Amino acid sequence: MTYELYYWDGIQGRGEFVRLALEDAGADYVDVTRATGRGTSEMLKRMESTTEAYVPFAPPFLRDGDQTISHVANILFYLGPKVGLAPDDEALRCFANGLQLTVTDFIAEVHDTHHPIATSKYYEEQKAEARDRAFEFVTNRIPKYLGYFERILAQNPEGGGHAVGRTTTYVDLSLFQVIEGLRYAFAKAMRHYEESYPNLMKLHASVKARPNIAAYLASSRRLAFNEDGIFRRYPELDIAP
Amino acid sequence: MTYELYYWDGIQGRGEFVRLALEDAGADYVDVTRATGRGTSEMLKRMESTTEAYVPFAPPFLRDGDQTISHVANILFYLGPKVGLAPDDEALRCFANGLQLTVTDFIAEVHDTHHPIATSKYYEEQKAEARDRAFEFVTNRIPKYLGYFERILAQNPEGGGHAVGRTTTYVDLSLFQVIEGLRYAFAKAMRHYEESYPNLMKLHASVKARPNIAAYLASSRRLAFNEDGIFRRYPELDIAP
Repeated sequence: MTYELYYWDGIQGRGEFVRLALEDAGADYVDVTRATGRGTSEMLKRMESTTEAYVPFAPPFLRDGDQTISHVANILFYLGPKVGLAPDDEALRCFANGLQLTVTDFIAEVHDTHHPIATSKYYEEQKAEARDRAFEFVTNRIPKYLGYFERILAQNPEGGGHAVGRTTTYVDLSLFQVIEGLRYAFAKAMRHYEESYPNLMKLHASVKARPNIAAYLASSRRLAFNEDGIFRRYPELDIAP
Repeated sequence: MTYELYYWDGIQGRGEFVRLALEDAGADYVDVTRATGRGTSEMLKRMESTTEAYVPFAPPFLRDGDQTISHVANILFYLGPKVGLAPDDEALRCFANGLQLTVTDFIAEVHDTHHPIATSKYYEEQKAEARDRAFEFVTNRIPKYLGYFERILAQNPEGGGHAVGRTTTYVDLSLFQVIEGLRYAFAKAMRHYEESYPNLMKLHASVKARPNIAAYLASSRRLAFNEDGIFRRYPELDIAP
């Protein structure tokens, strides 16, 4: 069965957390909005249906046969066990879900560094507020979240450098993406902070070296970060802590 | 087995979504930070441990024996089936989780109406930005989210006025709380919008009338909304659409 991933074309965005799992697993999937003969209109039609049941609020969502699964953490919780990227143990799966939801919260905060007032307006219309929010983000929020994930890695009773259990899970892949994005958008902060989080940096390097991830990153399927996405490089927001 | 709920004392906040499920189910639980002989320090100790595994990032979290479950949606996904507030069908449970994560996103936006720049600062230090964000929230975000939930209720193939399937789930309880909170914090907007969402209003009334919910709401365990919580009544943010 081919999975169908629905997400905005042209950006990595939240879809990338799902894409990394599908790619690492070598899963058979189609990226609907980018696929020949398909496109964004198909995604919008599913979201805007006023007759269908189980419509998603927003992308990304995944279709597996007739089932629609929405929200990154929900998709990964569903997909993880099927593609070998979740722990076997049920309690650990629950813990992994909690970690992924912490990633979700962090990503929402990243988004709000450039859109602190209104998603319906351009960044250029909220630049002063974005600067203030980015200052808070760089000063307080990056160390709070990265410090937490560093502790999770250090305090994993299985050791081995994974977030959960003794194998690579979708949480590890998501933490890789978090570091990639932060390095792009907040380069000065990351240069300052990285040495404080050795376990996270090691995890990032080890995910990057996984054969399917390395192949994906080198492919045209991996879009570059850009200023339509969630992680944006605006020099005025790249504040040194 | 007694469930242990950990959340900030003195506010409903995000803990309330879990509390409503525990109360509706008549589950045996202790609200740790409010319990005699216990308190907030116990919660902080669990969060701040630098030796334990599986530490939560933030409250609320639930303890069930030795297992710690964090994040509202994760807690409800775990708890729902055990207390009879989740659908039996696995695909519907997954859909319920997606809906609960939409509630989560909405609640984060509610929070940011009074804290658009920095959670580390007082509301009074970001009032001008809060006013702008609240305007966006009232104008665009309330109708976007409530319109979505209204469609979910209307397009539920089981009918019956529930968000998922044909029975009351934790999602219904959470939607009740969303309406309660909005009526408190954004009274003018809700007076304007409510007639557009008849299914949501009916669901709100039916949850409110459930015997265990009614008893809980009348009890001292239900704290009043206040201006330390997530839903806050600031006259200057109670903007008419």
